[in-house]
Amino acid sequence: MDAKRYKDLLKDAETKILLLVLDGLGGIQKKPGGLTELEAARTPHMDALAAEGICGLHQPAGAGITPGSGPSHLALFGYDPFQYQVGRGVMSALGIDFDLKEGDIAARGNFCTLDEEGRIEDRRAGRISSEKNRMLCDMLKNIKLPDVRFSVETVKEHRFLLVLRGEDLAGNISDTDPQVVGQEPLPPEPLDLKSTKAAALVSQFLKQARERLSHQHPANMVLLRGFSQMPQWPSMEELFNLKAAAVAAYPMYRGVSKLVGMDVLDTGETIEEEIQTVEKYWKNYDFFYLHVKAIDSAGEDGDFARKAALIQDVDRFIPRLRKLEPDVLIITGDHSTPSSLKSHSWHPVPVLLWAEQCRIDPVREFGERACMAGGLGVDIPADHLMPLALAHALRLDKFGA
Amino acid sequence: MDAKRYKDLLKDAETKILLLVLDGLGGIQKKPGGLTELEAARTPHMDALAAEGICGLHQPAGAGITPGSGPSHLALFGYDPFQYQVGRGVMSALGIDFDLKEGDIAARGNFCTLDEEGRIEDRRAGRISSEKNRMLCDMLKNIKLPDVRFSVETVKEHRFLLVLRGEDLAGNISDTDPQVVGQEPLPPEPLDLKSTKAAALVSQFLKQARERLSHQHPANMVLLRGFSQMPQWPSMEELFNLKAAAVAAYPMYRGVSKLVGMDVLDTGETIEEEIQTVEKYWKNYDFFYLHVKAIDSAGEDGDFARKAALIQDVDRFIPRLRKLEPDVLIITGDHSTPSSLKSHSWHPVPVLLWAEQCRIDPVREFGERACMAGGLGVDIPADHLMPLALAHALRLDKFGA
Repeated sequence: MDAKRYKDLLKDAETKILLLVLDGLGGIQKKPGGLTELEAARTPHMDALAAEGICGLHQPAGAGITPGSGPSHLALFGYDPFQYQVGRGVMSALGIDFDLKEGDIAARGNFCTLDEEGRIEDRRAGRISSEKNRMLCDMLKNIKLPDVRFSVETVKEHRFLLVLRGEDLAGNISDTDPQVVGQEPLPPEPLDLKSTKAAALVSQFLKQARERLSHQHPANMVLLRGFSQMPQWPSMEELFNLKAAAVAAYPMYRGVSKLVGMDVLDTGETIEEEIQTVEKYWKNYDFFYLHVKAIDSAGEDGDFARKAALIQDVDRFIPRLRKLEPDVLIITGDHSTPSSLKSHSWHPVPVLLWAEQCRIDPVREFGERACMAGGLGVDIPADHLMPLALAHALRLDKFGA
Repeated sequence: MDAKRYKDLLKDAETKILLLVLDGLGGIQKKPGGLTELEAARTPHMDALAAEGICGLHQPAGAGITPGSGPSHLALFGYDPFQYQVGRGVMSALGIDFDLKEGDIAARGNFCTLDEEGRIEDRRAGRISSEKNRMLCDMLKNIKLPDVRFSVETVKEHRFLLVLRGEDLAGNISDTDPQVVGQEPLPPEPLDLKSTKAAALVSQFLKQARERLSHQHPANMVLLRGFSQMPQWPSMEELFNLKAAAVAAYPMYRGVSKLVGMDVLDTGETIEEEIQTVEKYWKNYDFFYLHVKAIDSAGEDGDFARKAALIQDVDRFIPRLRKLEPDVLIITGDHSTPSSLKSHSWHPVPVLLWAEQCRIDPVREFGERACMAGGLGVDIPADHLMPLALAHALRLDKFGA
């Protein structure tokens, strides 16, 4: 999508857009002749919206591509996920609510096992516990680096986050993780002149980490990859003239929302608490992003029934959302997570758009196969949904005379 | 399609992809209310695959574009047919199994008729017989050119192939065929500096051809166009991490397969022999391209019944292909050849994709109108099928975190 095209057409309006993202919504049948999770779920309220709205299936990042949560959300927010890429280090920081500042360099770390010759034996150190990880991070916090502050934070199991904070740091640094076993870790190389200083600091960090961890087992070393800094992107306000708010219980989704300039609202863990937050702030924003995580987790666990049940749970709250009278209501997922695959997948994602002004299509049920007959088609790029929302919210002027 | 996007996501897998191309598969009804050739054919095995797979219609080269066999196949192999263009000379060489080497310059030749003033009277010399063509080619083989070898090979009727082989030849040379009658043939002009030498040689060739053919009638001269050299493209192994094999009875399809680095397997003329070849080599490759030509020929002949019957013939062999247990099976055409048009056409082409992990759509029959309701949509670019195949073969990693 060429966001510039839309920017030139923006106009003011009092309308409100609500984007409800059921994480990992899309699914597939367990066996031929079977239903998907969404089809199996009893969703009278979403079906009613489908019947009065326009439906389809969106492509988060293009044919055959399985997106991570970062790119798939950016696409839903109207940002081309290939143009707006976030480094793995920054994503790790967002995922644990680390307050990354402009200029900080973040890297994703793995505790790993080296053999006696210093070659990588296990890139994940046998997936040590998070508790063990915390203990090891405490050891690494005692490393001494000149002229720079740094943080080492446990993420989960063998994964941690390294952040360097200081003056004039640039993070264009090569991975030390060769991503194969049997080789030594690679040195961190600066990939441009201005990253020389930071690469040297990372090198010192690694030398000391090796010393400090040498008597540990199995986690006797660390691997670093995805060195990156907070991107400086245009906000949703700049691109779409929307005062936007995010309601999400999980850190990563709050983080991605921050990247596009949304206000991240304090909220609770449950759907009900999230909806209360939307209700509380409804007057203050033009655009709400409301995220429900649990559906994806059920898909990742391979639990078809739980995934379907959680979709049903969300359906019960739809009347409360409709009561707010959004001018445009979009319900979709960020990607598919079929429980039979136990992972994100490339399958296009069901989407319904409801608005007073939408062209109602023949779809009367919110489900994958029903959406195949929808007016939005079966492969609308996810980043086209935001301009469609703006149009239906009467926030776009005519193009040309 | 941006192949680079996929290249970064490739991962190893033991899975196998089988692409069955029924040349010219797509058709249209003879009259309103009628069936297409594929709809008229009894195809229980393809229908069963459609019922357990996902269907649609693909666009070989974009809305309204009627593709030749070169671009339409390249698109199926995952190569954007506008980015990867083959010159007419190279295509002529591929079409007669000529062993074109790197650096050779190939041109497509026409025998033509010049009037007494040297103006073109007939660009095809009354479509002389292939036998006459061979006799004339023998005369041209006696032409003397310095420092270069050349071949003149009969293609069919008035068409022949000219190939120059030598050191440091570049083939950016303008056509001598003005493609209108009443004008003199054009001189071959070098279109860049490094093509000067080859253009001068072509000029000498044409001068001598004129002398040698001057007493012939109606073929008293030649026209040359589409000067080109073998392209140096990334192979399917480089782009898609696939060890790929081609099984095709016709030279042109073997040739196009070679351009993308496939191994071309020795095979016989019949479908049965082709399938035996696939069976024989099944263990050795990740990807098989299996080509059936006769369906297109029936379409070109305007023979609706024969085209339908040939499709039925292929259907009988589907169980043998399924027995090989491909992880992904795609059945489609390279383009449409409606028998009522007696030629290639721009109509989108029915496609079915079967895989364990596909999202089954409501289509239960393999036919043009049934596919219009398919989950792949009615205008999927043909070069998106390869990434979809890779995804369903679990050969693509997640994009982004």
